[in-house]
Amino acid sequence: MMYGGLYSNPVPRFITLTTDFGLQDAFVGAMRGVILTIAPQARIIDITHEIRAHRIADAAYALASAVPFFPPECIHVCVVDPGVGSGRRPIAAAVGETLFVAPDNGVISLALEALQAATGASRHAVHLDNPQYWLARVSNTFHGRDIFAPVAAHLANGVPLQVLGPPLDRLVTLGHPPPESMPGGRLQGHIVYVDRFGNLLTDIAQAALARADPQSIRIEVGGSTLVGLNRSYADVEQGDLLALISSNWHLEVAMREGDAARALQVRVGDPVIVSGLDPAHREARK
Amino acid sequence: MMYGGLYSNPVPRFITLTTDFGLQDAFVGAMRGVILTIAPQARIIDITHEIRAHRIADAAYALASAVPFFPPECIHVCVVDPGVGSGRRPIAAAVGETLFVAPDNGVISLALEALQAATGASRHAVHLDNPQYWLARVSNTFHGRDIFAPVAAHLANGVPLQVLGPPLDRLVTLGHPPPESMPGGRLQGHIVYVDRFGNLLTDIAQAALARADPQSIRIEVGGSTLVGLNRSYADVEQGDLLALISSNWHLEVAMREGDAARALQVRVGDPVIVSGLDPAHREARK
Amino acid sequence: MMYGGLYSNPVPRFITLTTDFGLQDAFVGAMRGVILTIAPQARIIDITHEIRAHRIADAAYALASAVPFFPPECIHVCVVDPGVGSGRRPIAAAVGETLFVAPDNGVISLALEALQAATGASRHAVHLDNPQYWLARVSNTFHGRDIFAPVAAHLANGVPLQVLGPPLDRLVTLGHPPPESMPGGRLQGHIVYVDRFGNLLTDIAQAALARADPQSIRIEVGGSTLVGLNRSYADVEQGDLLALISSNWHLEVAMREGDAARALQVRVGDPVIVSGLDPAHREARK
Repeated sequence: MMYGGLYSNPVPRFITLTTDFGLQDAFVGAMRGVILTIAPQARIIDITHEIRAHRIADAAYALASAVPFFPPECIHVCVVDPGVGSGRRPIAAAVGETLFVAPDNGVISLALEALQAATGASRHAVHLDNPQYWLARVSNTFHGRDIFAPVAAHLANGVPLQVLGPPLDRLVTLGHPPPESMPGGRLQGHIVYVDRFGNLLTDIAQAALARADPQSIRIEVGGSTLVGLNRSYADVEQGDLLALISSNWHLEVAMREGDAARALQVRVGDPVIVSGLDPAHREARK
Repeated sequence: MMYGGLYSNPVPRFITLTTDFGLQDAFVGAMRGVILTIAPQARIIDITHEIRAHRIADAAYALASAVPFFPPECIHVCVVDPGVGSGRRPIAAAVGETLFVAPDNGVISLALEALQAATGASRHAVHLDNPQYWLARVSNTFHGRDIFAPVAAHLANGVPLQVLGPPLDRLVTLGHPPPESMPGGRLQGHIVYVDRFGNLLTDIAQAALARADPQSIRIEVGGSTLVGLNRSYADVEQGDLLALISSNWHLEVAMREGDAARALQVRVGDPVIVSGLDPAHREARK
Repeated sequence: MMYGGLYSNPVPRFITLTTDFGLQDAFVGAMRGVILTIAPQARIIDITHEIRAHRIADAAYALASAVPFFPPECIHVCVVDPGVGSGRRPIAAAVGETLFVAPDNGVISLALEALQAATGASRHAVHLDNPQYWLARVSNTFHGRDIFAPVAAHLANGVPLQVLGPPLDRLVTLGHPPPESMPGGRLQGHIVYVDRFGNLLTDIAQAALARADPQSIRIEVGGSTLVGLNRSYADVEQGDLLALISSNWHLEVAMREGDAARALQVRVGDPVIVSGLDPAHREARK
């Protein structure tokens, strides 16, 4: 098989970046420079660089909430990589036309699942072990610049996934427990993300609340109990807590123009318990 | 009238973004994805995403101070939207070739005024009520992604303003009181913005100080009185307070390589009183 | 000499930005607008805008660590400018094809040195004193917008360096002392940068450690002594301090998933002393 024959025609491609490098140092700048040196036609789009340091689960959530809104022909680079320089594998993955480049630590797992669920496309992944597509000199502390950025740029130039390394069947996942049914028709989920406003995002999908009476549903979180689902922040007074459906269609707990996480003193992983999910069931029990 | 005939030829357009979404979550990333899905040729330029949460007046000031420096053929999207999901209207507006997309809460009012004053062009606005130009599924908490981003992208594709919704005559304005003349030839204005360095920007225009003697003009703010206008920060010693003309040609109070807002314990809305504005008048009074 | 003859053909060019303006105000937005008004084809790439206010040395370090990873045909604009409006000179400089625009306060000095060392190209510089390439109205507090951004945009349009002002032979440098040999074969360097993770970057090059035994080398910093060089953060336990080679090939002191600067209570300028650099020498002394 001729090498050149593997190339698809170079096409303008978007490369998105999601990292915990922050914006105060030149880390992200150096990654941008590497990409534009190899693939000057690539357009670099930031998702975020302010993921809290080393918080893989936060990055996974952020990436998964943005990826479905991008065009399919994107290369998503995600570098939250506390294991840099250790045995963890650098990987690239494809779901349909969409490509990912990241360490194999679960950081792209939620986005891969979301895309597979949305498109029905299968997933392919490779272990990035071909240094031909890395920078000539690779540090032990900054694979974002030395491995992930150049690999993404070569992908944007039409280099096919399979030349970057051998196929990988299993990727690391986050292993979050799904929401759990409890006695009395209650459902226990968790806070999975706290955004910059202090809003609490949970893993309880809108569908799980479908049969509930929006007036009488009860949400327990951080020692407080909220009754009823609101439609939008503006439905309550400033400083009041409320529950509503988030912009990615899950249960959210918020404080109007305030910080619910601070007010309730809760954080990612804390339980959220919903009751009153099935009024019919409740009537039957009586 | 044929629908297609309304389209101008698609041209490369800049879309600027000004929000309070911050850069730590994927909110801005999702907006970028929506824009590039609909209008892949659009070039997205950030003004700022770090407007303090829900501070409409801060966003209005920031936007108005940047817009005059952009090319006319821009689409400025500004989303500081504490009323999202409530009755406040989503709008688009045009001043000459320049377009705006925002909630109708005053956030674009200062920029509209600035552009109208600079160009003499008239203003047109519409109420965004045509869901054909929104995402298929609209959340109640993230119209930046679901309404404002897609509308901006469609405008970048040449969709004319008038198909987005019915015309609107009156838009919400901020209702800031203008500076006020006081007994003794004094002028009372206000701090209208505090920048990241702690510099105090006021609503007192350079023109109002035109007849003053720069050596003897007196500025009272936060219980301190400054005498004289300096030319630049470097005119005083490190840590000294000074008054000068800001980069948008208004009175500014600053501390060299320090934080005037913190030193004076003042904030937006606090009064700034200027005296010695008219030496001739003062002489005459004697 | 005909003016027009000086122009090279306009080519798409990258303009990078490094400032301490932060991202919460519209300063950077206004600079972007100015550039795109003059040179709409230019592609603006951020290195960082979160340099701590007025910290020229931090900016110099950040710029020098990113510039080598960019394509040569870039214009690097760096504005950390506490002397704005004073006598300090605005300058532009060239090393080979790479251009710089900045105040003459040392902020580009490390990047110029790095590029000259890497390419062997000579350096040319001019004093920006030709207002034809500035905004029509120049403030005393925001030369980033009024002088540096328009000059960079004109350079991106093919305006040659020499029409921007007269040549300058000497530029301001930072005057950092190099690491110093001490009795007993020890070497004293300094912390030159602290990154967002709290990692301590020093001025002690990897080459200076070449003959040391990686197991027995001793690093003293902030009252603590580390023994041995590690390969990557993952070599030690969470919360442990370690010494390793940084991604720009100098000695670095870090704490795994922690903040070494906070733990050791050290900052830029503090000494770092290395001993055990030459085992042969030590043997001979015995």
